[in-house]
Amino acid sequence: MGPEGGTLEESNRNLDEISDLALQLQNETGVKVLWVTCNLFAHPKAQVKKGLDIAKKLGAENFVFWGGREGFLSLHNTDVAAELKHMSNFFKMAVAYKEKIGLKCQFLIEPKPKEPCKHQYDYDAMSVIGFLKHFGLDGHFKLNIEPNHTTLAGHCYEHDIVMASAFGMLGSVDSNTGSPDLGWDTDQFPMDIRNTTMVMKTIIEQGGLQPGGLNFDAKVRRESTDLEDLFIAHIGAMDAFARGLRNAIRIVEEGVMNKMVKERYMSFSSGLGKMVEDGSTSLEEMEEFIKQHGDPKVTSGKQEKYESIFNHYL
Amino acid sequence: MGPEGGTLEESNRNLDEISDLALQLQNETGVKVLWVTCNLFAHPKAQVKKGLDIAKKLGAENFVFWGGREGFLSLHNTDVAAELKHMSNFFKMAVAYKEKIGLKCQFLIEPKPKEPCKHQYDYDAMSVIGFLKHFGLDGHFKLNIEPNHTTLAGHCYEHDIVMASAFGMLGSVDSNTGSPDLGWDTDQFPMDIRNTTMVMKTIIEQGGLQPGGLNFDAKVRRESTDLEDLFIAHIGAMDAFARGLRNAIRIVEEGVMNKMVKERYMSFSSGLGKMVEDGSTSLEEMEEFIKQHGDPKVTSGKQEKYESIFNHYL
Amino acid sequence: MGPEGGTLEESNRNLDEISDLALQLQNETGVKVLWVTCNLFAHPKAQVKKGLDIAKKLGAENFVFWGGREGFLSLHNTDVAAELKHMSNFFKMAVAYKEKIGLKCQFLIEPKPKEPCKHQYDYDAMSVIGFLKHFGLDGHFKLNIEPNHTTLAGHCYEHDIVMASAFGMLGSVDSNTGSPDLGWDTDQFPMDIRNTTMVMKTIIEQGGLQPGGLNFDAKVRRESTDLEDLFIAHIGAMDAFARGLRNAIRIVEEGVMNKMVKERYMSFSSGLGKMVEDGSTSLEEMEEFIKQHGDPKVTSGKQEKYESIFNHYL
Amino acid sequence: MGPEGGTLEESNRNLDEISDLALQLQNETGVKVLWVTCNLFAHPKAQVKKGLDIAKKLGAENFVFWGGREGFLSLHNTDVAAELKHMSNFFKMAVAYKEKIGLKCQFLIEPKPKEPCKHQYDYDAMSVIGFLKHFGLDGHFKLNIEPNHTTLAGHCYEHDIVMASAFGMLGSVDSNTGSPDLGWDTDQFPMDIRNTTMVMKTIIEQGGLQPGGLNFDAKVRRESTDLEDLFIAHIGAMDAFARGLRNAIRIVEEGVMNKMVKERYMSFSSGLGKMVEDGSTSLEEMEEFIKQHGDPKVTSGKQEKYESIFNHYL
Repeated sequence: MGPEGGTLEESNRNLDEISDLALQLQNETGVKVLWVTCNLFAHPKAQVKKGLDIAKKLGAENFVFWGGREGFLSLHNTDVAAELKHMSNFFKMAVAYKEKIGLKCQFLIEPKPKEPCKHQYDYDAMSVIGFLKHFGLDGHFKLNIEPNHTTLAGHCYEHDIVMASAFGMLGSVDSNTGSPDLGWDTDQFPMDIRNTTMVMKTIIEQGGLQPGGLNFDAKVRRESTDLEDLFIAHIGAMDAFARGLRNAIRIVEEGVMNKMVKERYMSFSSGLGKMVEDGSTSLEEMEEFIKQHGDPKVTSGKQEKYESIFNHYL
Repeated sequence: MGPEGGTLEESNRNLDEISDLALQLQNETGVKVLWVTCNLFAHPKAQVKKGLDIAKKLGAENFVFWGGREGFLSLHNTDVAAELKHMSNFFKMAVAYKEKIGLKCQFLIEPKPKEPCKHQYDYDAMSVIGFLKHFGLDGHFKLNIEPNHTTLAGHCYEHDIVMASAFGMLGSVDSNTGSPDLGWDTDQFPMDIRNTTMVMKTIIEQGGLQPGGLNFDAKVRRESTDLEDLFIAHIGAMDAFARGLRNAIRIVEEGVMNKMVKERYMSFSSGLGKMVEDGSTSLEEMEEFIKQHGDPKVTSGKQEKYESIFNHYL
Repeated sequence: MGPEGGTLEESNRNLDEISDLALQLQNETGVKVLWVTCNLFAHPKAQVKKGLDIAKKLGAENFVFWGGREGFLSLHNTDVAAELKHMSNFFKMAVAYKEKIGLKCQFLIEPKPKEPCKHQYDYDAMSVIGFLKHFGLDGHFKLNIEPNHTTLAGHCYEHDIVMASAFGMLGSVDSNTGSPDLGWDTDQFPMDIRNTTMVMKTIIEQGGLQPGGLNFDAKVRRESTDLEDLFIAHIGAMDAFARGLRNAIRIVEEGVMNKMVKERYMSFSSGLGKMVEDGSTSLEEMEEFIKQHGDPKVTSGKQEKYESIFNHYL
Repeated sequence: MGPEGGTLEESNRNLDEISDLALQLQNETGVKVLWVTCNLFAHPKAQVKKGLDIAKKLGAENFVFWGGREGFLSLHNTDVAAELKHMSNFFKMAVAYKEKIGLKCQFLIEPKPKEPCKHQYDYDAMSVIGFLKHFGLDGHFKLNIEPNHTTLAGHCYEHDIVMASAFGMLGSVDSNTGSPDLGWDTDQFPMDIRNTTMVMKTIIEQGGLQPGGLNFDAKVRRESTDLEDLFIAHIGAMDAFARGLRNAIRIVEEGVMNKMVKERYMSFSSGLGKMVEDGSTSLEEMEEFIKQHGDPKVTSGKQEKYESIFNHYL
């Protein structure tokens, strides 16, 4: 959803035209609109209502809140607690309106650090999860992870995908990349097979992304001035994810690494470890156990072995 | 709490000696031990029990869990979801034992990113808040913020102090600093008056830190080889915080900036804004309001004016 | 110098109009145009010729080459050695044309990392110095340092100003700032008194900047929407540099820190140290000296003392 | 070369013992000592003399100056110009002594940013090249690039290898890696095939590294506690470089990408471009040319196509 300027009515008229076109394309080609992404620049609250109406009309399966300006530029002029509360109330209104109009799609928030605000409230996966849980919104939202945003927040490429998945909150993926040595959002086409393999492995292990998916939020470089570059970029990036998927399937099906991980955590499958896992023991019992049996044996993490095995699948 | 090696019994004996000495010093000098900080390196779970016993003996008012190794070095060999659950169960055991022995102190978690693990689960304030809320532990813990850790997580110096405070979770402060151009934990003595002013302003605005406080988790540089450097460093850093406190008091008492902030958010004090603040409106009402009254007037953020005024207080 | 699009002739016509206007303003107000800054986007080589003609017409005292796109986006498609050679040849042409038309101004290169190219050849002060010396151009250029660029290259605010000065290459300063926790070029108005003091101290110690100066390459934040914000921002930043200058003058005149530095390096003023300083000793002589006199005594760097003293001047 | 503490004589005795052992091993196994790496911690100048004597005794082919502490922790207490001069005089003494004892090996400087000093003078390849050229030392030294240091300086993995090679200064490679999301020197075993391919491609294109080579400056992770981890790590990393070498050979031999690069720069092979390449044209001629022929046609950089092709070789 786009147009930033103009009055609300003009903006709504534009959105109607765009969505009519989308609906027509959808009907003619059979290709479904899966996402409606809503940035919150102009008339934000009224615009989101319009966006939800359009999502209903298009039968969209995902609705992404891309918090372009949900943050502060300076702490001096900002009441952080008030802003967080306003933001949560706004999300609650969106949930209420969604239910009112019978829109069935998944709501998604896309974490993004450092741009355009000095601090974005949706800095990374854990920031958004903390916010949603604090305001009781975690039942209504999942996360749409963009790896370029993840690396800007100081994490490795697949980090937020793994963390969101561990908390049961991974809903969709903006499949792009940045350069980890740059501090801005380059939105490049993802081409690194290692990265795509890690992402697909996590998606497989959580049983897929439905109704989410992979969305190419990427653009060709400024120097890529031929029309064919657009096609080459999409094909190259799709190939990168396809190779990642094939690698991930083999890794998961052959189960070598998974078996090693299981063995590493085996001590939590019985005895005292099982009681830690279940939360049914106490510090006193643990002390007593260590006094009797000595410290638990340290087992090697074998990171280099895992890395070498992983390389066999690339 | 220190000794890393040896058996549990040796370690406990060492801790007994240290805590007896601390108790004796406390009695003779009247200077209280305010914090017991517990790192989780060797025999972690049994050690924490011992630490809680010592905290009880010393009458400590704060107990800091400094999660030295609560994270992963490689995603290949790690089951993130399992580790988070184990960690939460461990914290629950600590809460249970604390209540059992009648220990009254505040439990604190100290966020720390990137060291020593590639990823620490307690990356920054919001990561810890998300974790605590997910596992229902947020009533039992507050945060001990170390600004050097904050800057390593990609935020400005005072960021996590402000965020923790906004969520009602700021319990104590490790008063040190790093160099924002470096990516490792230098633990320098804090000397920047701007930074100390921002920290003290937040602490004043939330009504103080009790039972927490400022703890100099800092060391002199490797080149500072004179004995007097230790004293100069502590005095210089205390002076820096004292100047920060005086600046912050004047800023808060004179109220110039606070009044500007209030005016900036005034639209949330009445009418539709008040209904957003209270969470008692809906997207439909807001759309209706904008149709009738037009877009709300944008007021200037005036960041440069705030910054100029702030400079008058330094 | 601005206009990016259009043909060379259109662009030149625009530049003629702009420079005529500047000349008129200069004549009417007595305020001189000190810098002509030339970005190298469109028709770069022809445009620079035009820029030099205009600089001559305006009597400019500085000509800044702002290397907006002097770098690579990808190593795959780039011949680094060829590009460096082309760039050096281009600078040589500019030197030749400058001499031909009798333009007396100082040529300046402005280091800039990471934007807009993934790698800029003029990454930081030392990168530019290395380039200039390799191609024999160091006699014809000085550096125009923008501290926001310096922090993006991973250095502290004043770093490139100090390094350029140490190599005798500091010609001018773009007085702005960024946020060290952000990885992009925010071009904010400089408001940190500590930073401005460090910059002015370096400038004083090298005997000034002439014909260079301080140039506000800064813009108000996007949220600063009032007209007065522009004035407040310039005034606030000028005040910040004025306070920095006053602080620096007192630091230099009172000489406390300078005396401490002199004492720290005193061992290089006599004996073997003097011979190291002069380059008139050898490894054999040094070994002999240490065998006879033992290792040189380590003296404390006393960083915390310096920092405490420095704070007295702020 | 190691021992940090003790008197010069003790230190020298230790070094004699170590080097005798190395010599014996060399004779018995036929495996040559290729590098002597000298850190400059204790008795630095005398120690380097000893190191050069040992290098002579062992027939070392490379002598690496690893500037562990060649930098400053604080600008307040530092005379940067003096320190740079002292450092250059020290290197000149080393060159003189090397020639005196007839040592034939290649001198190498290893760039390193941010650790252990806040600023290292040998920050990255270009910093060292600038320093060497300024003090007339560039004929006597090459660079030993450690990619983990390169990424800490804010560049991509292979950046300093490419830049050093472009300036004819690439002498040797410390084959390790870090995590680009971390800001400290993790010295991990290199396992990323993409990275090793890029490094080997550069080495092939410059005709090899002799007398330098690849040196595993890496250590297993703290959690890798089995003895076999050491072997697995070395084997895995060697395999990674072997795959990188095979990929690079195919890329170079098949020449697809190289041909594309040649075509991209074709305009510099004839006409005006050739004159820029040769440095035999002028701004006037170029303006004239553009007036007659219009702007040169922009050709697409086709980065995504290069990246897709590159992926075919991995």
